[in-house]
Amino acid sequence: MNKLKLGMVGGGQGAFIGAVHRIAARIDGQFDLVAGALSSDPVRAATSAAEIGIAPDRSYANFEDMARAEAAHENGIDVVTIVTPNHMHADPAVAFLEAGIHVICDKPLAHTMQDAERIATAAANSGKQFILTHNYTGYPLIRQAREIIGRGDLGTIRVVNVEYTQDWLAEETPADNKQASWRTDPARSGAGGCVGDIGTHAFNLASYVTGLETDALSADLDAFVPGRRVDDNVHVMLRFRGGAKGMLWASQVAVGHENDLRLRVHGDKAGIEWAQENPNQMSFTKFGKPKQILTRAGAGSTPDGQRNIRVPPGHPEGYLEGFATIYSEAATLIRAADHRSVPDPSVHTPGIVEGIRGMQFITACVASSKNNAAWTKLG
Amino acid sequence: MNKLKLGMVGGGQGAFIGAVHRIAARIDGQFDLVAGALSSDPVRAATSAAEIGIAPDRSYANFEDMARAEAAHENGIDVVTIVTPNHMHADPAVAFLEAGIHVICDKPLAHTMQDAERIATAAANSGKQFILTHNYTGYPLIRQAREIIGRGDLGTIRVVNVEYTQDWLAEETPADNKQASWRTDPARSGAGGCVGDIGTHAFNLASYVTGLETDALSADLDAFVPGRRVDDNVHVMLRFRGGAKGMLWASQVAVGHENDLRLRVHGDKAGIEWAQENPNQMSFTKFGKPKQILTRAGAGSTPDGQRNIRVPPGHPEGYLEGFATIYSEAATLIRAADHRSVPDPSVHTPGIVEGIRGMQFITACVASSKNNAAWTKLG
Amino acid sequence: MNKLKLGMVGGGQGAFIGAVHRIAARIDGQFDLVAGALSSDPVRAATSAAEIGIAPDRSYANFEDMARAEAAHENGIDVVTIVTPNHMHADPAVAFLEAGIHVICDKPLAHTMQDAERIATAAANSGKQFILTHNYTGYPLIRQAREIIGRGDLGTIRVVNVEYTQDWLAEETPADNKQASWRTDPARSGAGGCVGDIGTHAFNLASYVTGLETDALSADLDAFVPGRRVDDNVHVMLRFRGGAKGMLWASQVAVGHENDLRLRVHGDKAGIEWAQENPNQMSFTKFGKPKQILTRAGAGSTPDGQRNIRVPPGHPEGYLEGFATIYSEAATLIRAADHRSVPDPSVHTPGIVEGIRGMQFITACVASSKNNAAWTKLG
Amino acid sequence: MNKLKLGMVGGGQGAFIGAVHRIAARIDGQFDLVAGALSSDPVRAATSAAEIGIAPDRSYANFEDMARAEAAHENGIDVVTIVTPNHMHADPAVAFLEAGIHVICDKPLAHTMQDAERIATAAANSGKQFILTHNYTGYPLIRQAREIIGRGDLGTIRVVNVEYTQDWLAEETPADNKQASWRTDPARSGAGGCVGDIGTHAFNLASYVTGLETDALSADLDAFVPGRRVDDNVHVMLRFRGGAKGMLWASQVAVGHENDLRLRVHGDKAGIEWAQENPNQMSFTKFGKPKQILTRAGAGSTPDGQRNIRVPPGHPEGYLEGFATIYSEAATLIRAADHRSVPDPSVHTPGIVEGIRGMQFITACVASSKNNAAWTKLG
Repeated sequence: MNKLKLGMVGGGQGAFIGAVHRIAARIDGQFDLVAGALSSDPVRAATSAAEIGIAPDRSYANFEDMARAEAAHENGIDVVTIVTPNHMHADPAVAFLEAGIHVICDKPLAHTMQDAERIATAAANSGKQFILTHNYTGYPLIRQAREIIGRGDLGTIRVVNVEYTQDWLAEETPADNKQASWRTDPARSGAGGCVGDIGTHAFNLASYVTGLETDALSADLDAFVPGRRVDDNVHVMLRFRGGAKGMLWASQVAVGHENDLRLRVHGDKAGIEWAQENPNQMSFTKFGKPKQILTRAGAGSTPDGQRNIRVPPGHPEGYLEGFATIYSEAATLIRAADHRSVPDPSVHTPGIVEGIRGMQFITACVASSKNNAAWTKLG
Repeated sequence: MNKLKLGMVGGGQGAFIGAVHRIAARIDGQFDLVAGALSSDPVRAATSAAEIGIAPDRSYANFEDMARAEAAHENGIDVVTIVTPNHMHADPAVAFLEAGIHVICDKPLAHTMQDAERIATAAANSGKQFILTHNYTGYPLIRQAREIIGRGDLGTIRVVNVEYTQDWLAEETPADNKQASWRTDPARSGAGGCVGDIGTHAFNLASYVTGLETDALSADLDAFVPGRRVDDNVHVMLRFRGGAKGMLWASQVAVGHENDLRLRVHGDKAGIEWAQENPNQMSFTKFGKPKQILTRAGAGSTPDGQRNIRVPPGHPEGYLEGFATIYSEAATLIRAADHRSVPDPSVHTPGIVEGIRGMQFITACVASSKNNAAWTKLG
Repeated sequence: MNKLKLGMVGGGQGAFIGAVHRIAARIDGQFDLVAGALSSDPVRAATSAAEIGIAPDRSYANFEDMARAEAAHENGIDVVTIVTPNHMHADPAVAFLEAGIHVICDKPLAHTMQDAERIATAAANSGKQFILTHNYTGYPLIRQAREIIGRGDLGTIRVVNVEYTQDWLAEETPADNKQASWRTDPARSGAGGCVGDIGTHAFNLASYVTGLETDALSADLDAFVPGRRVDDNVHVMLRFRGGAKGMLWASQVAVGHENDLRLRVHGDKAGIEWAQENPNQMSFTKFGKPKQILTRAGAGSTPDGQRNIRVPPGHPEGYLEGFATIYSEAATLIRAADHRSVPDPSVHTPGIVEGIRGMQFITACVASSKNNAAWTKLG
Repeated sequence: MNKLKLGMVGGGQGAFIGAVHRIAARIDGQFDLVAGALSSDPVRAATSAAEIGIAPDRSYANFEDMARAEAAHENGIDVVTIVTPNHMHADPAVAFLEAGIHVICDKPLAHTMQDAERIATAAANSGKQFILTHNYTGYPLIRQAREIIGRGDLGTIRVVNVEYTQDWLAEETPADNKQASWRTDPARSGAGGCVGDIGTHAFNLASYVTGLETDALSADLDAFVPGRRVDDNVHVMLRFRGGAKGMLWASQVAVGHENDLRLRVHGDKAGIEWAQENPNQMSFTKFGKPKQILTRAGAGSTPDGQRNIRVPPGHPEGYLEGFATIYSEAATLIRAADHRSVPDPSVHTPGIVEGIRGMQFITACVASSKNNAAWTKLG
């Protein structure tokens, strides 16, 4: 099977998430990274391209040139991945979609709802694939959780509790911290800080696993660090359609937490608990029965829990493998689209719909918090 | 040192918490249980008294007789412990206080605020001790957490997250389950179900450890089990005086949780996490430093963490020992009161103030939830 | 039911284990401590007795006087508990047995095999009960483990792995540490140091739970701390009758371990794991099935796992409650003996047989280690 | 930087470890897999090659042809990786080394000591690199453990405890299980079964981290499953040069364990504990101080713990990333050798020395066990 030709926008020297995307694209061997507009700084763009093996004539000074040239190239890229800060998602996404090139894009979808809708429109018009890298949905046990809830193992869901806590922004942001500086600048991150950066992951994960639609939320956002211009701690109560209730806590000032995304779901028949920092196990308890520790692809695992794995149970897979699954499923979707075939029904990677939903979540949280945590509808 | 003479109201056959109180009173050897009105059913009262070694002439048919007789008895009880359902706390408490007898009482303080205030008034007028058995405050690491927060090890507190989750009421309550039936009957438990039974423990613990005063809360209460007349799941957002924020989750339908009281506190300097089911360890993380696992009375423990222990680190103490500490401190307070001496400043057992605060919490939660989770002031 | 009258030998001021025995005897309310020879120092004996409420005329200067006087007393003790260092077990045990008084004794049985056999003979001749406080056998989940192995849930046992690791003796023993000084003095602790103090607990626990008899062992004992006269680290390979194999590691120099007794048993059908520092849960895995986390008295618990409990699942019971179960079962045995009735078959408290077996274990370990870890038979 | 051209011997359809090596080689982007002799079955070899993108003219029917052709090819491979069963390591390794091609080889080094020595000789004569994929040495916290022990943070090492337990061979081996069948066939696996397959990993890890040399061992090997021709459970006592002691347990019949490699090291100053199934944390306890939970690249991490990482702390890296580090360091060693430069001193990947040491371990275990677990010298 020929590899897909991949381009990248953003991800030059000093960036974090670009390198992660490149590894994720390599792990399952389905992509060749052949083109890039890696930085808005032309020197850094060229140097970065050389470092990662992109030929000079496929390294571009900006995404507009890249979209135009790659669309015209006889061996042009099949798909581009966009790994820029939030405020620079929409313009390249629209440009590549309009150029007939599939798009993989980091989350959240955009920094404003208008931008998000521009992307959605372009995607709909293009007929091209748009994959949003909510990478935590790629963990096998998250797939298994989604599957067993879907088939009713938990019964009717009553309560969902999701958290994503970190502490790296617990103090004032050093001016030279590239990752921190754009995330705490509303002009680049959007109206939400923590809520957009990691709150959306938590919201997406809860929605993805349970299949529940959030009807309304009440949010209390804080910026605890003096001088911070965006929220760094987020408390949300959720009301789902159908009557389930939820709580969401996202924080970048929760001292003692590194990247502590965790999900608990309780139905009338059973409950589960999963935490990202040790993602190869999940607890599952049927009411009145002993708690079970389910392991990735281990005893009792389901078809979706056994798909997209690379090593047997007991050999931990991690963040990069979960991310790689998003890329592999993107490849499956892209190949199916290019061959006008029906994609594998087992593919469950988030896209435009989840991206818009995430933007609605951010928007509702910010609005609710400004309105004394009043209940606010999504969408 | 002579033992204190103890009486008990409630706690006859079939009761749960009465037996716990009796063991707690025995562990440190400071009490002799010599009198009781163990049941409103006279036969059960007598049989229960015989079983636990109370002399027939000190077993009473009702608390009124008991208060009167014991106050007049030359070797009458020093203190009574009240272990009846919530709606039967106030009458005996007032009767014994008015009879000049110290009172130990199970939580919550009462089933209505009026009753709570009657107790408060009686306690103030009597000059007698009133101890409320928020037993989880008796764990040595909770004492240590309180101490290190008080001395500033966590810096300014920003976020408090407290949970108390169970699953024993996840299905319809069997009619013959004595524990379940009064807890789900508003006439006996009060307006709050789960919020009063375990939500108050969570609220008390967060307040006790952090020293923060709750200014207002927003609560979403549910009764998920069909036909249930009181809440069985409680979501609360908290705003503390001074700017800290909190979340509280109490549930009796969270399948997979037995008695999962857990507390996380995050300040600008450090964070802690503790869980009741494994109460002999607590994590403590200074910002930028490795997480430490502090053990009960182990390395790095503080004076308050080393007080009230019975066995060295590594030998687990549990629920009953924490409860016994409440009793031992009650003994200390009672002896000091009786001798008009200053009680040991290390005693930190909850009493009337915490009881009223807990009632305000229940009241505010119920009111907020009826008002679409509107922010509601406490007290 | 009348309480049993209890006496104590040893356990005066400064002792550790005596206080533990006293609490254990109080928890279930079956004993009254009424007499003692608490110290070989008469002043300390009298002061200690006063402190714990023993009447002056029941406080004795030595155990010989006490045995004689209590046997003659019209309300003399029913049972004595011996909590002296190892070298002072045999003389009082024999004296009280010969005086017709039941004996509870701390472990190991004695400091030499001769002494152990003197006790065994006296016990056999007296017809009185002799209970050895291998307290870890009192944990409910240990009872449950014993029961499920006995009924075949693990199939044929293949491998047993038991450890008991501490670090409190990792450095040279301070001269003023009373607990440390006798444990590291061969004249008082016996030929084994760590192997006798905690190795016997580990050996007993493995034997108790599995029902396996050790045929031979190979032991490598070390005294790592300079100047130490007894072993402080013990490595043993075990061969059980019937073909199972085992490893045992006991250490008092394993830095990072407080009181880390843990047991793993693997059969051809299932495996279990339990650790004393969090004794309210045990893992249980059937081959090819998900691991289950069994909790004390929780879902899936067995009759023996539900016996001897005081609080519901999720409320941790600890070291003292396990110890209290030994005392309560001692009471059951003593009452049955005194009434010439058949004791409750659910009583499984260790006694003389296990004590002799423990001495054989110590003896074999010391002999094997001196002989370059040669395989050495027990008994 | 140009990628290294990689060939593979073994790893055709149905193989497990070959696919793992291919991912490991891809993750850091330093290798292109361009040639292979993937199977001794020519049809499977060709099909497998096509599947993984090896050109037909670089797919060989056997390793002899491959070594010859690739050595002569103008763009011939720089390095070959050997992923065949143990008995087929030596012949290809020698062939490629003699052809002047670097070798990466799965462990153990060979199935007999003679074969191992043939490889050692060929490696020495060739001047080429030979890397043995003891992949668990690639975990960042293992590197950190090695570094802190090397610099003295644990003081003098006293006790080492290492385990590698699995349960996948707890029952009779299905005839059609390719992975199981060669591992339980002495003709292909060598004299050791479990001891060679996973015991060597445990032994290597303990040696790697502590730097201690094993002087002698006493081993008790069992084949618990009826009809099994190699050991499936291994108990070993270890004596290290300098006086430290150790225990090693390897089992493939320990029901309840998936891939439970764990290491504990105790010195006179501190102790550590690490387990492979959650490899992103390690406990570290200084004597008398609280236990610390060190995380991969997190607070308190060391230079070696921060090297070879791909994502920040809190985002778990797993088995494949550890394996990838071995490949990346192999690349570093190969480039240095090819450029006659000094390799980066931070490279610590096992090679011939560790391979020979592992064979001595297997040999000594088998010999000791046959001799009633007599102490047996290594080497």
